Amino acid sequence: MLDVALLGTGGMMPLPKRYLTSCMLRYNGNSLLIDCGEGTQMALKQLGWSCKPINTILITHFHADHIAGLPGLLLTMGNADRSEPVTIIGPKGIGNIVRAARTIAPELPFETRCREIEGTEDTFQLDGMIVTAFRVNHRVACYAFKIEVPRQGKFDVEKAKANGIPLKLWNPLQKGEEIEYEGRLLTPDMVLGNSRRGIKVVYATDTRPTKEITRHAEGADLLIAEGMYGERDKQEKAGGYKHMMMQEAAGIAAKARPKELWLTHYSPSLMRPEIYIEELRKIFPNTVAARDGRNISIPFEEDEEETEDKA
Amino acid sequence: MLDVALLGTGGMMPLPKRYLTSCMLRYNGNSLLIDCGEGTQMALKQLGWSCKPINTILITHFHADHIAGLPGLLLTMGNADRSEPVTIIGPKGIGNIVRAARTIAPELPFETRCREIEGTEDTFQLDGMIVTAFRVNHRVACYAFKIEVPRQGKFDVEKAKANGIPLKLWNPLQKGEEIEYEGRLLTPDMVLGNSRRGIKVVYATDTRPTKEITRHAEGADLLIAEGMYGERDKQEKAGGYKHMMMQEAAGIAAKARPKELWLTHYSPSLMRPEIYIEELRKIFPNTVAARDGRNISIPFEEDEEETEDKA
Repeated sequence: MLDVALLGTGGMMPLPKRYLTSCMLRYNGNSLLIDCGEGTQMALKQLGWSCKPINTILITHFHADHIAGLPGLLLTMGNADRSEPVTIIGPKGIGNIVRAARTIAPELPFETRCREIEGTEDTFQLDGMIVTAFRVNHRVACYAFKIEVPRQGKFDVEKAKANGIPLKLWNPLQKGEEIEYEGRLLTPDMVLGNSRRGIKVVYATDTRPTKEITRHAEGADLLIAEGMYGERDKQEKAGGYKHMMMQEAAGIAAKARPKELWLTHYSPSLMRPEIYIEELRKIFPNTVAARDGRNISIPFEEDEEETEDKA
Repeated sequence: MLDVALLGTGGMMPLPKRYLTSCMLRYNGNSLLIDCGEGTQMALKQLGWSCKPINTILITHFHADHIAGLPGLLLTMGNADRSEPVTIIGPKGIGNIVRAARTIAPELPFETRCREIEGTEDTFQLDGMIVTAFRVNHRVACYAFKIEVPRQGKFDVEKAKANGIPLKLWNPLQKGEEIEYEGRLLTPDMVLGNSRRGIKVVYATDTRPTKEITRHAEGADLLIAEGMYGERDKQEKAGGYKHMMMQEAAGIAAKARPKELWLTHYSPSLMRPEIYIEELRKIFPNTVAARDGRNISIPFEEDEEETEDKA
């Protein structure tokens, strides 16, 4: 089960009922935050989610509407008595940004660690999630993120027996350990069936549409994408400032076929994003003009065998 | 007329309905901001006051709950097309803080200028206001601010004539100019009566009570002071962390006799500051447990003559 919440859905500047774009994912007691505009800690409080278990913060790019909430969030995590390190991952130069945040909030009871995203695509293993950062097309270096929760195959008793695995080693192998035993290397695949479909979420803002977004979002459970404007006459502005129209986001979804598309990062001029929903659903039916606080718990899909068991 | 608004009344961390402590003053089309915690720009938006005319930002001290809103506010002032410089005044080291804020919000269409407060008391002339910063007693270097709007005497025709001032110079002298004319230095006092009572506001947080706060707040129109806790059993904590109890703030007001006392900078644990109001008003009757957005327009006092005119 992966919980996803859009903490804020605003671009550029926050409005009284719209915090800046930020997204939190929770898996297995660990939390991952993507972007941290001003107001992120307030949005979390409002949602009733804790900031303390945030082990990792992913930053798409260094525009203030995506990073200005960092000092306040770090301070509040410190006030919540977090002591474990927090890793902050972002484009080249993330160290400077975190140093600036630490100048504003210097006294923290935990360590902050920085990792730069390398090249056009980079992968991180984080608390049971695999995060792929891939470069998108904005005015400054900007990355989208694909978050995957892999799911191993079911335990296969017959396979374990056929491979001659002693009973006492079944459990550690199932949990993913590799074991040297009586001169043999025993690996998890010796006791597990084929790996099963996991969970996939893609988050892409601020950017023009790119083929890479479509490719990574293919068959995702959820695509969260920028919908800066809905007004057709803002197409040129979106192109110039390297932002994405709502219709373009729906166009990506129509090709990539995620289960759902949530729009976010609205221009402050776009007061009621819902008014475009009819038009957008003609492009991609499962489009949602998300509002602050929208959240979902994505379960692992039941596989065929499980479905049969229940029948 | 001086407008004063408490944008936020929270200490430490913002709550969904309580932004961090910040105060704005407007005089004659110019605005002055004191402190800028996370959420300040949202609070301004909610109140319907513009951030664009903020010429000066005064910072009491460098704890994040008083400065973390700077990058977002500066960015939004830039988005509002401000082009005139903004001066930021604070304790020694303000340059580092503003540099950090500018790392997070680097692209601004205006210049930021920094001024360090010198010594235990320092005075600044700002847009017709006289600001006195005076050192208070917190864990780090922290200043309170006294804002005074001086008011010159009324134009005195008889005095102007008696001093032999030519008619064409009455107006510039009344407006405060000094003029060299036919070998004489003409000064405003040659055409003005005695200066009249102006407006005085004092803002003091985060600090233990000090004699200096009482002295500066004497007879003020408004004293805004920290009321971190109301619970008597938090007295020791307030002493240790160098904060002020509501009762202590009321005690200062009882001595200094401002027209009103507004409490602010409440602990996040203090959900309903109003519950102490009865007790506080026994100490100082005109005490207000302010909530976010509280504002007042303070007029110049009518002087005796004006009152007679109306009679």
